Amino acid sequence: MDIQEFVANSIGRWRSQRSAHHLAFGHFEAVQSEIDIIALADDDPAVIELCKSYNIDQKTVVSPFRMSWSGQSDWDDSEIKGSCILVPVPDSTDSHRGKLLRDQGYAETIAAAGDYYLTEDGTFVLITAYDRAAAEEKIWFVNPNVRCRVSLIKTSAGTGVVTASFSSEIRQNIQK
Amino acid sequence: MDIQEFVANSIGRWRSQRSAHHLAFGHFEAVQSEIDIIALADDDPAVIELCKSYNIDQKTVVSPFRMSWSGQSDWDDSEIKGSCILVPVPDSTDSHRGKLLRDQGYAETIAAAGDYYLTEDGTFVLITAYDRAAAEEKIWFVNPNVRCRVSLIKTSAGTGVVTASFSSEIRQNIQK
Repeated sequence: MDIQEFVANSIGRWRSQRSAHHLAFGHFEAVQSEIDIIALADDDPAVIELCKSYNIDQKTVVSPFRMSWSGQSDWDDSEIKGSCILVPVPDSTDSHRGKLLRDQGYAETIAAAGDYYLTEDGTFVLITAYDRAAAEEKIWFVNPNVRCRVSLIKTSAGTGVVTASFSSEIRQNIQK
Repeated sequence: MDIQEFVANSIGRWRSQRSAHHLAFGHFEAVQSEIDIIALADDDPAVIELCKSYNIDQKTVVSPFRMSWSGQSDWDDSEIKGSCILVPVPDSTDSHRGKLLRDQGYAETIAAAGDYYLTEDGTFVLITAYDRAAAEEKIWFVNPNVRCRVSLIKTSAGTGVVTASFSSEIRQNIQK
C-alpha cells in the first residue's frame, strides 16, 4: 500500500473511541469524537502556503487532506474541537516513506513535519519530533470500515513513554 | 526478531492498563492488572501434555511460557484472574511464523491454537479462530520496558469487529 491508497481509504466521516493511558499515574481518559477526513486539491491555497513554509516544492506533494474533529473527554467534559491540514511528501526514491507536513498538531498546537513509512502489512507509522517530546503513531485498517490508531507521546530523549492512547474508528454513513 | 527473542523480551512482571472498546455501544471498559510471564522448560509436564493434546512433536516447540494475570475491571468490579500456558511451535520452513498452542484463552476459557507471525518491524501478530469468533492480536515493544497490545474480537466471518482493546504494559521491578 502506498500513501495515496492509504489516504483514499481514510477519506470519510469516522466515529472514534479513544482511550488515553497516562502511564505515570495509571489514569484512563476516554474520549468520544467524530472525525472528518476530506481530500484537498494539490493546489488548494492552504496546501501551497504550507509547502512554502517548509520550503517544499508543491509539485512533490500527493493526496493532501484536511482532518477535523469534535468530541468530548470524560476528563474535564470540555469540548475537544480542531482541524488541521496534512500534506504527504513521498521520498523521491522510496514510495513507502516520506514526510508529512501539518499546519498544526493535535499533540501540540504548532506546525510540525513528521517522517512516515508504510510497513509491508499496511500499517502507517508516523514519527514526529517536537521541542520537548516525540510522538509515534501507528494507524492500520482492520477492514475498510474500521481503523485502529495507537499514539505514543515520549520524552524527547525517546526513552520514556508518557502517554499511550488507542483509537478505534468506525466509518459512518457507509454507502451500500 | 524471532519468537525466542520475543518471548525472552516478554519474561517478567508487567503492570497493565487495558481499555476495551465495545464498538456497537460506544462503551469503554478500563482494566488494571498485573501480568507475570515466566519461562517454562521444554519438558515441563504441562507443556508435554499440551503438545500431546494437539498431536505436536514436543521436540518442535520453543520458549514455552506461562502467563498469569490478576486485575480489576471498572465494569463490574469483579476480580479478573487467570493463568495459561503458551507454547510456540515455529514453522519448520519459516522462523518468523508458526502456531501458538494455549491451554486456555482469555477470550474464551477453552484451549486454542492460533497462527502467529512476526513482522519485519518486530510486531507479533496472532490470529486465533474460535467456533463463533476470531481474535486478532498485535503486540510490540516500544522499548525494553514498555509493550503495547491491541486485541480485536471479530465475528467468525471476520468482517465485523465486536471489541477492540488496547493494553499498555510497563515492566515492574526493573533491575538496574
